Amino acid sequence: VRISELSAATDVPVPTLKYYLREGLLPAGTRTSRTQAIYDDSHVERVRLIRALTEIGGLPLATVDRVLVAIGSPDVSRLDLLATAQGALLPADSPDSSDSAPTRASPQPHRAARWLDERGWPTGPSDPLADELDRALAACDIAQLGLDDERLSSYADAVEQIAHLDLVSVPDEPLPAVRHVILGTVLIDAVLAVLRRLAQRHAAVELADTQGPPAP
Amino acid sequence: VRISELSAATDVPVPTLKYYLREGLLPAGTRTSRTQAIYDDSHVERVRLIRALTEIGGLPLATVDRVLVAIGSPDVSRLDLLATAQGALLPADSPDSSDSAPTRASPQPHRAARWLDERGWPTGPSDPLADELDRALAACDIAQLGLDDERLSSYADAVEQIAHLDLVSVPDEPLPAVRHVILGTVLIDAVLAVLRRLAQRHAAVELADTQGPPAP
Repeated sequence: VRISELSAATDVPVPTLKYYLREGLLPAGTRTSRTQAIYDDSHVERVRLIRALTEIGGLPLATVDRVLVAIGSPDVSRLDLLATAQGALLPADSPDSSDSAPTRASPQPHRAARWLDERGWPTGPSDPLADELDRALAACDIAQLGLDDERLSSYADAVEQIAHLDLVSVPDEPLPAVRHVILGTVLIDAVLAVLRRLAQRHAAVELADTQGPPAP
Repeated sequence: VRISELSAATDVPVPTLKYYLREGLLPAGTRTSRTQAIYDDSHVERVRLIRALTEIGGLPLATVDRVLVAIGSPDVSRLDLLATAQGALLPADSPDSSDSAPTRASPQPHRAARWLDERGWPTGPSDPLADELDRALAACDIAQLGLDDERLSSYADAVEQIAHLDLVSVPDEPLPAVRHVILGTVLIDAVLAVLRRLAQRHAAVELADTQGPPAP
């Protein structure tokens, strides 16, 4: 199909598609003349993927680029693949995570590393995910949410079920697997966040019903 | 304390504090002269709260403003309070959610409403959270993640445990409760996202151990 039809099929304006082509996010089409090229189904799918990652996943284009590079790399083990996906998606993308880290204010430095050790989840001396957990926990501390190790472990029990569901659904072939892990991490984060709010409402209504209306 | 000391205590530059004061995010201090004012512990806590919401929660200042207004409102029921918090935090903040909704491309419109009915979670004819779930599910469909109703319900089982943990920890007094719900929703979303990646790694390592190394 021509670029105008690619635009119609994906609901993305032609100038945006040309921008993707210039930036290398979208591979060039097959030239049919000096000024025209044709595009196939792989282009349609790729454009939809870019839109899904930016509009729903909320990822900046620079991260989308890294994700697309990861998807295009030669086959890797399922574990390497997960590491690649996690690396591409690390919140290190946020402008202030590396320099003005809020961990300075943390009353419990290295809490994440200690907790991970106790739980038996794999970690190492320099683990960006553990650093990220420290930052997130420090913010909860500052906000005085009372998120102690016991409650953190209860959350982790529920999240282990989620991670298990994540992994059993990953396809076996390397390329679809990378795609699935990266998209699944970003897009299902969004689903889980909405589910959490819906489940909170459900739990709050049940709580209100149990307690009954307040006496007048 | 003076504004320079407030800056030192919160690690926020004086110009930023003055911006918060101008925008009404931070209440004025007590004037001691035409050009000076003093600030107390409530200012320190409020500045830390703003930093937590923007730096860790990743919320834009406009949303932080709505959140602070919600925290300052007179006492409400625990259910209204949850609705206020959810309203302030709805991803409606993203620039493209209202106009160019990706739901257009959804192969299953109203899937969220039908699924919520079946699950018995409260929803209504016009429910922003259900719309948000539809958008998130449509993105998963486009990405062909194979997130069918069965797997969605399995995720929901785990998320119900999380929501229960969220609610039992909410304090009884209205003001701390609003603060706790809003901050807990934003900040613990960040904790849960990191935990999910850590749990995926744990599960992947266990999977690799079970399967053993590939034959050379």
